[in-house]
Amino acid sequence: MTKQQLFAQIQKKKSFLCVGLDTDIKKIPEHLLEKEDPVYAFNKEIIDKTAPYCVAYKPNLAFYESQGVTGWLAFEKTVAYIRQRYPDQFVIADAKRGDIGNTSEMYARTFFETARVDAVTVAPYMGEDSVTPFLNYNGKWVILLLLTSNKGSLDFQFVQDQNGERLFEKVLRRSQAWASEDQMMYVVGATQGKLFEEVRKLAPDHFFLVPGVGAQGGSLEEVCRYGMNTACGLLVNSSRSIIYADSTETFAEAAGKEARKLQVEMAEMLERFL
Amino acid sequence: MTKQQLFAQIQKKKSFLCVGLDTDIKKIPEHLLEKEDPVYAFNKEIIDKTAPYCVAYKPNLAFYESQGVTGWLAFEKTVAYIRQRYPDQFVIADAKRGDIGNTSEMYARTFFETARVDAVTVAPYMGEDSVTPFLNYNGKWVILLLLTSNKGSLDFQFVQDQNGERLFEKVLRRSQAWASEDQMMYVVGATQGKLFEEVRKLAPDHFFLVPGVGAQGGSLEEVCRYGMNTACGLLVNSSRSIIYADSTETFAEAAGKEARKLQVEMAEMLERFL
Repeated sequence: MTKQQLFAQIQKKKSFLCVGLDTDIKKIPEHLLEKEDPVYAFNKEIIDKTAPYCVAYKPNLAFYESQGVTGWLAFEKTVAYIRQRYPDQFVIADAKRGDIGNTSEMYARTFFETARVDAVTVAPYMGEDSVTPFLNYNGKWVILLLLTSNKGSLDFQFVQDQNGERLFEKVLRRSQAWASEDQMMYVVGATQGKLFEEVRKLAPDHFFLVPGVGAQGGSLEEVCRYGMNTACGLLVNSSRSIIYADSTETFAEAAGKEARKLQVEMAEMLERFL
Repeated sequence: MTKQQLFAQIQKKKSFLCVGLDTDIKKIPEHLLEKEDPVYAFNKEIIDKTAPYCVAYKPNLAFYESQGVTGWLAFEKTVAYIRQRYPDQFVIADAKRGDIGNTSEMYARTFFETARVDAVTVAPYMGEDSVTPFLNYNGKWVILLLLTSNKGSLDFQFVQDQNGERLFEKVLRRSQAWASEDQMMYVVGATQGKLFEEVRKLAPDHFFLVPGVGAQGGSLEEVCRYGMNTACGLLVNSSRSIIYADSTETFAEAAGKEARKLQVEMAEMLERFL
């Protein structure tokens, strides 16, 4: 999917919501545990009810892997389901991968050939040759970790070099030489607040994937005020507050309602800041 | 496995070799492709022939994931095979994971409860709370990326802060507050050469996992001269130069021979530097 196609979806749906599929077998409604593949059954219902209000889905690989082979099957089936039923959705494998070149090539094969998602999240610590193998696929995206939403983001991401450049700024500057805004996005946590203004200045045209609204406490209004550009430039993710909105048989309806609530707020933000 | 148990194995076998199982379906001998699970079949033979000469195995997750569900099955079966037949081997999932706390918890569950390896490689970019969830398992290890063996290691790992401390030093210093040398090891690439001396000063008692000897060009002698401590403190990995030593029906014998060659060199190094 191209940047223009993604923006077209955002305009059509008046939403830049990404629904995070952090599906934990220990948290899904009990009645689903009888199903052959409870995680997949849960995801299917969540997707059917939230699809009108979002433009992207982000399965979080850790949750699938924790179930081993069964989990990988649920992940692949979930991606295939979205692809088939909702082909306009942008699908992100939230996997935080990155390794030496020949290994990153294999990860790229995993996500772009075997699982066929649109984008994969990548960690920058190992530098250029750990990232570029993911860029050899037409129409596919790297979403590079820049400023994450967690407390640990303070440990290394803000370290200043001798010219005052912080690590996240260096990652941003260097990585812009590896790929354009048509192939790379950045993770910028909603909890980073006003920093969005600085990051947006350094990357005026890139899309940001924004975790941390909802359970982690980030403010949608702040993210939009400081982070939105003329092509929206934001995919705001919400996982737990949508998919676990209700733990009974009406979980999917509740998830749809939460997604719709966010979509309405997002429509207003697009009105105000686009 | 404890540090003492690992050192005991090293002394017994006169080897600190880790065999990297970067098993690529496109590179294994043709006659194995008829097997039900060619990757597992390949690994089993490699393991049987190399086990006398090594103390650790390191399946590289990317290679398994690239085959989707089939690959995960091969990974799990490989780990189970080592566990059952060679219970004294240290098993490392080379996965380069790391995410916000609740997600790293799931990755820890993946590798320590579902797949039951001894250690997992973790990337430090997201800081403390992305690493510590892996430390909640008795007898299990985090192997944190510090100085990697690839060219991209130069991009960010050497960035100096305003006091002259380089990023890898900062990662090393801070992470030592998260866990002791009984639960944490560090990845230090063999290609880093003389830097081993500096890293060893900062972490006198830790084990280092050392990739980059062999196909990537690092020198075993240099690694040992500068990196060995009184409990060896080194696990030197070799992947491609062992497992792809021969591409015919005698591949496993050839792998065993390569592993034995390295073991002989290592015995000499232990003699000289321990």
